[in-house]
Amino acid sequence: MTKGIQTRQAIVEEALRLTSLVGLDALSIGQLAAAVGMSKSGLFAHFSSKEQLQLEVLRAASERFVARVLAPAVKEPRGVPRIRALFEGWLRWDRKEFPGGCVFAAAWAELDDQPGPVRDYFVDTQRDVLGTIATVARAGVEAKKLRDDLDPEQFAFEFFSILLSYQRINRLLPDLGAEKRARTALDALLERSVRGKGRS
Amino acid sequence: MTKGIQTRQAIVEEALRLTSLVGLDALSIGQLAAAVGMSKSGLFAHFSSKEQLQLEVLRAASERFVARVLAPAVKEPRGVPRIRALFEGWLRWDRKEFPGGCVFAAAWAELDDQPGPVRDYFVDTQRDVLGTIATVARAGVEAKKLRDDLDPEQFAFEFFSILLSYQRINRLLPDLGAEKRARTALDALLERSVRGKGRS
Repeated sequence: MTKGIQTRQAIVEEALRLTSLVGLDALSIGQLAAAVGMSKSGLFAHFSSKEQLQLEVLRAASERFVARVLAPAVKEPRGVPRIRALFEGWLRWDRKEFPGGCVFAAAWAELDDQPGPVRDYFVDTQRDVLGTIATVARAGVEAKKLRDDLDPEQFAFEFFSILLSYQRINRLLPDLGAEKRARTALDALLERSVRGKGRS
Repeated sequence: MTKGIQTRQAIVEEALRLTSLVGLDALSIGQLAAAVGMSKSGLFAHFSSKEQLQLEVLRAASERFVARVLAPAVKEPRGVPRIRALFEGWLRWDRKEFPGGCVFAAAWAELDDQPGPVRDYFVDTQRDVLGTIATVARAGVEAKKLRDDLDPEQFAFEFFSILLSYQRINRLLPDLGAEKRARTALDALLERSVRGKGRS
């Protein structure tokens, strides 16, 4: 790896950490430069604008999410084991990956009203994530582990919703046992989704 | 109403609108002063600090949520009608109440890592909301409309999760039909919760 690439990676690493704490918008070039021990102009040699830096942060977070959460899950057998692996990996991601919680959670409320390439990229990541959950559900149906009449997109909506609720409640109200609540909610979703366990 | 109270209300109204668009943190006294046609020092006569203004915004949003969403719902009969009224009122709140979506959604990712009175107040609002949903569920159990073994806190977690997912997906990916997905998810939650409709 060349020195330039190493430096760039160190900057992105620090930017991810700061974004999880303060959000994408509040991530200032000056603060980041100070944190990595560079001048602002030195930082601009790597990122030509704040927008480019924000895009780089989201891209790095996406790649990491794929590597840490999605890739390990799809190695598991289709159906319940793969769904549970995805869920557990995601809980770990929310708890441990960044000091201020999920970078995407920090970004979304800021970006929803800011048209432009950063929002567009963020929207793509959210579409991809929902699409991936639906694909995992569909694989379970095809493997005859989940119900034939399961709607994979509906499954994705509900799976995602459990994780959002976990994320928010766990960070704000740690005494409420969000992790246990989230697992119970997943169990109920799986109960409805698994082949042969019909609703009444 | 005295002129002072009217002015203050107009300021808070505009502050709510801006917060929904840019978030609590980006809500600047200068921007707000310009929007209401006052000087910054004139604004400081009403709010002694940015923190006090943020608290006022959250307090106003909470009062409005109670008036627009909670109060109409609890007039409905206990059980499914009250739960559905709460849900529908909440969907309307997310869609229509503020130009940039729910003020609480805009606030949470910013506040989760910022200790202080504003975060404390926000956390209280979230605890209250979850508590209220649990109370609505508990009333349904007591009225023998919902299952005796229903866990009201678990119900609250899952009900809240559907709304968070709706909120995020509806704003970022309007083509995905989040509203229909949210209603289907609620139907499934009610199906599991209603007395006499047991799981298999």
